[in-house]
Amino acid sequence: MNGKTNKLHLKKLGIDTYKEAVIFMRKDCHVCRSEGFDVPARIRVSLNDKNILATLHTINNGLLNPHEASLSKYAWELLGAKEGDEIHLSHPKPLQSLSFVRSKIYGEKLNFEKYSHIISDITKGYYSDIYISSFLTACAGGRLDYDEILDITNAMINVGERLTWPNKMVVDKHCVGGLPGNRTTLIVVPIVTYFGLTMPKTSSRAITSPAGTADTMEIFAPVNLDIKEMQKVVKQENGCIIWGGSVNLSPADDMLIRVEKALDIDSEGQLIASVLSKKVSAGSNNILIDVPVGPTAKVRTFEMANDLSILFKKIAKTLDIKVEMVISDGIQPIGRGIGPALEARDVLAVLKNEINAPKDLREKSLDIAGKIIEFSSDIKYGEGRKIAENILKKGYAFEKFKDICLAQGSFNEPPTASHTYKVLSKYCGRVTAIDNRQISRLAKLAGAPQDKAAGVDMHISLQSVVEKNEPLFTIHTESNGALNYALSLLEQVPEIIQLEAFE
Amino acid sequence: MNGKTNKLHLKKLGIDTYKEAVIFMRKDCHVCRSEGFDVPARIRVSLNDKNILATLHTINNGLLNPHEASLSKYAWELLGAKEGDEIHLSHPKPLQSLSFVRSKIYGEKLNFEKYSHIISDITKGYYSDIYISSFLTACAGGRLDYDEILDITNAMINVGERLTWPNKMVVDKHCVGGLPGNRTTLIVVPIVTYFGLTMPKTSSRAITSPAGTADTMEIFAPVNLDIKEMQKVVKQENGCIIWGGSVNLSPADDMLIRVEKALDIDSEGQLIASVLSKKVSAGSNNILIDVPVGPTAKVRTFEMANDLSILFKKIAKTLDIKVEMVISDGIQPIGRGIGPALEARDVLAVLKNEINAPKDLREKSLDIAGKIIEFSSDIKYGEGRKIAENILKKGYAFEKFKDICLAQGSFNEPPTASHTYKVLSKYCGRVTAIDNRQISRLAKLAGAPQDKAAGVDMHISLQSVVEKNEPLFTIHTESNGALNYALSLLEQVPEIIQLEAFE
Repeated sequence: MNGKTNKLHLKKLGIDTYKEAVIFMRKDCHVCRSEGFDVPARIRVSLNDKNILATLHTINNGLLNPHEASLSKYAWELLGAKEGDEIHLSHPKPLQSLSFVRSKIYGEKLNFEKYSHIISDITKGYYSDIYISSFLTACAGGRLDYDEILDITNAMINVGERLTWPNKMVVDKHCVGGLPGNRTTLIVVPIVTYFGLTMPKTSSRAITSPAGTADTMEIFAPVNLDIKEMQKVVKQENGCIIWGGSVNLSPADDMLIRVEKALDIDSEGQLIASVLSKKVSAGSNNILIDVPVGPTAKVRTFEMANDLSILFKKIAKTLDIKVEMVISDGIQPIGRGIGPALEARDVLAVLKNEINAPKDLREKSLDIAGKIIEFSSDIKYGEGRKIAENILKKGYAFEKFKDICLAQGSFNEPPTASHTYKVLSKYCGRVTAIDNRQISRLAKLAGAPQDKAAGVDMHISLQSVVEKNEPLFTIHTESNGALNYALSLLEQVPEIIQLEAFE
Repeated sequence: MNGKTNKLHLKKLGIDTYKEAVIFMRKDCHVCRSEGFDVPARIRVSLNDKNILATLHTINNGLLNPHEASLSKYAWELLGAKEGDEIHLSHPKPLQSLSFVRSKIYGEKLNFEKYSHIISDITKGYYSDIYISSFLTACAGGRLDYDEILDITNAMINVGERLTWPNKMVVDKHCVGGLPGNRTTLIVVPIVTYFGLTMPKTSSRAITSPAGTADTMEIFAPVNLDIKEMQKVVKQENGCIIWGGSVNLSPADDMLIRVEKALDIDSEGQLIASVLSKKVSAGSNNILIDVPVGPTAKVRTFEMANDLSILFKKIAKTLDIKVEMVISDGIQPIGRGIGPALEARDVLAVLKNEINAPKDLREKSLDIAGKIIEFSSDIKYGEGRKIAENILKKGYAFEKFKDICLAQGSFNEPPTASHTYKVLSKYCGRVTAIDNRQISRLAKLAGAPQDKAAGVDMHISLQSVVEKNEPLFTIHTESNGALNYALSLLEQVPEIIQLEAFE
């Protein structure tokens, strides 16, 4: 309504509210006054043929003049808007799919059409965080049955792109709630693709951790490839390791996951829908799922892991894809380095078969690569690992890794930090505990993942015996300032590594 | 941690995000970099001895310099901060009460201690909207049993102030999901207090409607009284009609209600806890609850109303308060005016016993006042209404209303609008439908509630018979611009009043 009057011109303010669309308007502008918009209203914002829903935040000082509005970063992107564009504002129509969410809250079972409607509205950005949180909560606590998980998965597949590949068999791996420093992907992909399987791998960047797999891969090669570039690399090398955010295969999942992370609820139905929809969209049909079990991991008991495994396989079968589960030890971080370049260095040591390469990283990577190789119908159970080990030992994996990097744009060696500081043991004794949360925090204070070379390099693990003045770990930074931040944490939390002193 | 380094100076940007605390920081500032803060992190913000949790939004242009941060309006208020103040930023400790919310999601019954912990954290502003939404959803759909509703109610009472009054009996009324133009409160309070009962009434302002009870009362007298001023008025006059927002009797409820409204879920447990905690905090012990039932009201069927009534009474009894329920017709708005001054004019016409005063408003007010008078042990069932009618007819209610207004600060007559526009019927016929939603919208476009005199004055009701060119309603505005907005809506939605034409 008010075609001529409900218009404002866009001005950049540079505000980032992550994936919730926000519109900034003056409370006294003619549109707020006439439409009765007040915080926290949801407003329909239109530009040319695009419409989004945004949450209103008002501004009462001189940042905007009365004929101007501004948007959050995400809203600029959704609308494809430029500074100066004239937007049209109106009251949104009630979202019909919210009545389905309400039904779910009241315990009703929803069908595929209703879940499709909900997922489609979420993907279009029509749900505020409040609605997404309510939807996720209504589905958690075992309130989705088998049909519903399948319906949500299919609804999520339908809203995104779906890739196809020349090879019939396309493999992938996924780790449920990973540990810091678990960079097996960079070793598994070259082994498996050298063997001849197609593995178009997308990975995530760090959100709250010192490095994500995509951040570590970026040490070696570009990872911001679009779908066309990704397809070219996979055609040439059978695989890739790129950042999932740049191909946008499961737009609904991106919206759900950020609220899920904030809520920290382990809804197994949502987890299965999230993982399988992403993999099916990427065109994969044989998927290895790694479930680390431990007190601080997402899955805490073997019983939970087994229940999850049964449900995963059942849903996957209906989707005509094969899933194998590997339940692994989720107690300690894997490898030595924490931070993009330090983790990259660990990966390189394994790929180059260096004598001091981290054993745990090598073993876990070979286990996973072996299982994936066994997806091939001509490989018998138990043979995969030997094949993987042979490919790694002979240096083929390293050559393949370099080829994948070059196909993605370059192969660079990991940088080293300008400043290092060794933290020494004050006693002679045995390591009885490592506070992983504080080690991660130390690596972030040192500058990871923004400063690529920054982080923490561990020299000990649980049960290590250390002498007095032997180094426990080394802090790597790119500046004195960052080093001081890290050291001030150490002063406040001296017991990051606990030792049982010898008499 | 980092006592010396994690500090920034506050700058005003004037951004209002309603009741979610937001902190605006530069992504490249030393605190974001060193602590690894990124959108949408929750950050602990400290100033002197106050601590709040705020959601991070980043700003990447010149609005802030690297040593500055800004806050949303609500966060400035929570911290009591001034421009230039130095705040300290840190990672928040995990909220233990969120694990109770998670238990509730998984169907566990929570006890009083756990609900107290949740309600206390919500009141302190520690829950983001995502968490509040999840908590409300987990409690909706009949997932709270009798004990739990009682425990939440008590937890909500404990976090706020609790008023006491010299008189033993303190009465109140509450309307569940009211209709536009239902201003019975302004007639009920003077009748009941003249009779001798204590009725310290707090009301709300408009959020999405053209006027709230507090907005209409503000036409006559100041309503932003603090607790001391309120107590003085009640001591002198036995009652008051003030804005609830200025006394903050149920801080938890204020936080919950805004998310509840957005979600539009009818959680009867939360509704009961919300109403009863607010009334108990206000010191009331005899409460009349008006439940309008209709297809567009909050309660849609008489069965729902009866179930609600039983549960309300049961919980109230445990809290040692008496509750009576009145189930009423929720199909049509009550009175003629829509907008603060026009509704005030209707109220005045009833209080002054004017011949053309809206009958529906008069009748409903007398019904309610009568029921409240019957809370007195010496008044028999059925006698209350006669007493109320007598007080109104003799002009005592009007005198009492003026006294209450004067005790609150002044008694002013309702203003009239500078511009009016009569919308005439194009046919001769009978009114078969009135689109209440569009009438509300018209009143808001005309300027209500900001422009006090603006709104819509209805000249017809359902089943009225009108001649051709007879006025259907009059639009009242304070400017030509606002009148044009309202008229442009009429062009687009011509069928606001539907007529069955006579041949």
